[in-house]
Amino acid sequence: MNNIVAKLNSRGVKIEDIAVITHDLQKSYNNATYEECEQMVMEILAKRETIYTILTAIALDESAEKGLFDEEVNQLITTDNSLYGLDEILALSIVNLSGSIALTNFGYLDKSKPGIIGKLDREGKQKIKCHTFLDDIICALAASAASRIAHKKGIQ
Amino acid sequence: MNNIVAKLNSRGVKIEDIAVITHDLQKSYNNATYEECEQMVMEILAKRETIYTILTAIALDESAEKGLFDEEVNQLITTDNSLYGLDEILALSIVNLSGSIALTNFGYLDKSKPGIIGKLDREGKQKIKCHTFLDDIICALAASAASRIAHKKGIQ
Amino acid sequence: MNNIVAKLNSRGVKIEDIAVITHDLQKSYNNATYEECEQMVMEILAKRETIYTILTAIALDESAEKGLFDEEVNQLITTDNSLYGLDEILALSIVNLSGSIALTNFGYLDKSKPGIIGKLDREGKQKIKCHTFLDDIICALAASAASRIAHKKGIQ
Amino acid sequence: MNNIVAKLNSRGVKIEDIAVITHDLQKSYNNATYEECEQMVMEILAKRETIYTILTAIALDESAEKGLFDEEVNQLITTDNSLYGLDEILALSIVNLSGSIALTNFGYLDKSKPGIIGKLDREGKQKIKCHTFLDDIICALAASAASRIAHKKGIQ
Repeated sequence: MNNIVAKLNSRGVKIEDIAVITHDLQKSYNNATYEECEQMVMEILAKRETIYTILTAIALDESAEKGLFDEEVNQLITTDNSLYGLDEILALSIVNLSGSIALTNFGYLDKSKPGIIGKLDREGKQKIKCHTFLDDIICALAASAASRIAHKKGIQ
Repeated sequence: MNNIVAKLNSRGVKIEDIAVITHDLQKSYNNATYEECEQMVMEILAKRETIYTILTAIALDESAEKGLFDEEVNQLITTDNSLYGLDEILALSIVNLSGSIALTNFGYLDKSKPGIIGKLDREGKQKIKCHTFLDDIICALAASAASRIAHKKGIQ
Repeated sequence: MNNIVAKLNSRGVKIEDIAVITHDLQKSYNNATYEECEQMVMEILAKRETIYTILTAIALDESAEKGLFDEEVNQLITTDNSLYGLDEILALSIVNLSGSIALTNFGYLDKSKPGIIGKLDREGKQKIKCHTFLDDIICALAASAASRIAHKKGIQ
Repeated sequence: MNNIVAKLNSRGVKIEDIAVITHDLQKSYNNATYEECEQMVMEILAKRETIYTILTAIALDESAEKGLFDEEVNQLITTDNSLYGLDEILALSIVNLSGSIALTNFGYLDKSKPGIIGKLDREGKQKIKCHTFLDDIICALAASAASRIAHKKGIQ
């Protein structure tokens, strides 16, 4: 658990970056506090499926960054072409644990790219780093936490 | 096919209402014309799975409108509570024919509610009609057409 | 909760019918007891999304049974043609809360139809009742319980 | 296209291995010939999403085989623990282009492992090769072809 938080930190993502997006998604629907959102993000990060997905996503990003795959695959991943699509699919591993509100919020964040999601996207586009898989994982984490908050707190 | 277009019309949805949303989703990525978007919406409407999904969605909306289900189910559907979630799930029957761009666009439209989607949503909230299932179907149709256009035309 | 168990009972499904399928799915992988499987089924039945899905599925089956929809939709649902597909889609509302083991087990049960699932399918085919949606819901419940047991107990 | 067939061949999979499974899935439902099944597999292999998914899956398998990832990730992938789950998720990129019959057939093949699927699984378990991702891709290809055949030929 501390392990997976450290892994996210090593790629430039703090827990607060995720919890802030969850809080923004929820605040017009109920009175969930920022702290409750952060707590929910931590609960999702404690799940085995989440941990495996994050490790796999970062392994793909880092290996493409280092050019370890075949040229064609390195290219596909580092370019982050919107026709590639496997990054969104991998993130479903997290989304498909939290129901349909997670799914629609995931799609919304993937298009609107608030906060850290946009930052990762820009670093990737500028070839500073490869975050092709990680930005979608952050969308999935924030969206899943929002879905669970919605079911826990209700919608007003 | 004319049949399903007539069915959509009978619930206040024209093909142009859908194609316009597809065109808006695509126009910053490639040079797809409005006519190509409309053509793609028609191709999706010709699929058996799409037809069955639209018929089922409208049957659910109309039956809830008429109060044909048990009180509890009528309430659940006519209220369109965002914790209900079956409306988004039913729409996956269409989305899951067109890949991951369809999925993220679907989530985006479901949250941002442009054009006819917002209109259906408001008519539902004002209890004029019940469009709990139909508005998500429109999101799915427009998002799926956008995904197919993206794969056909490429992304610039 | 007692409510939803009673609803399932009224359509001929007992909790044990579901738990037995979960236990069969798991017994070669770990030492989960039948009681643990039944307990897990009950936990899944306590979730809001599960309850809403079951209520909607049974409303569809019963309304088709009574001929409340348009002729075309009544036909589509009571015939349970394998090209219809909405029954499997609706069940994803439950499956998409329990991860990828739930998804593969769901597909497996839907094809192999053990126990109560086959019984519901036969009653539907013989036009005694309409269980087009309910049999897939039972697949989803048993598969989801098996996935959660697998993650809880581990795989040996 | 020849490219992706050659890539599959290089990992021990022939087109016939896939088409035979599709034919077996379909033969009790309609009169699709083996040749029609093979043709359908080829059509699915011509899709951009399919090609990208196969390239990514094989890149993951080969990199884990060579130990290019962090120790933890190499372990996770080469062990093919059924709690890992990302292999099934990646395959959804192909399954989610062909509708709900593809989804249930996918789950069924993933559990029953006929023909080449079982062979890849055994080679993986014996640590001869790593096919953790590829075997699920084959399930997805055969299942998707079966779904498209079912919709094209009808169900008898």
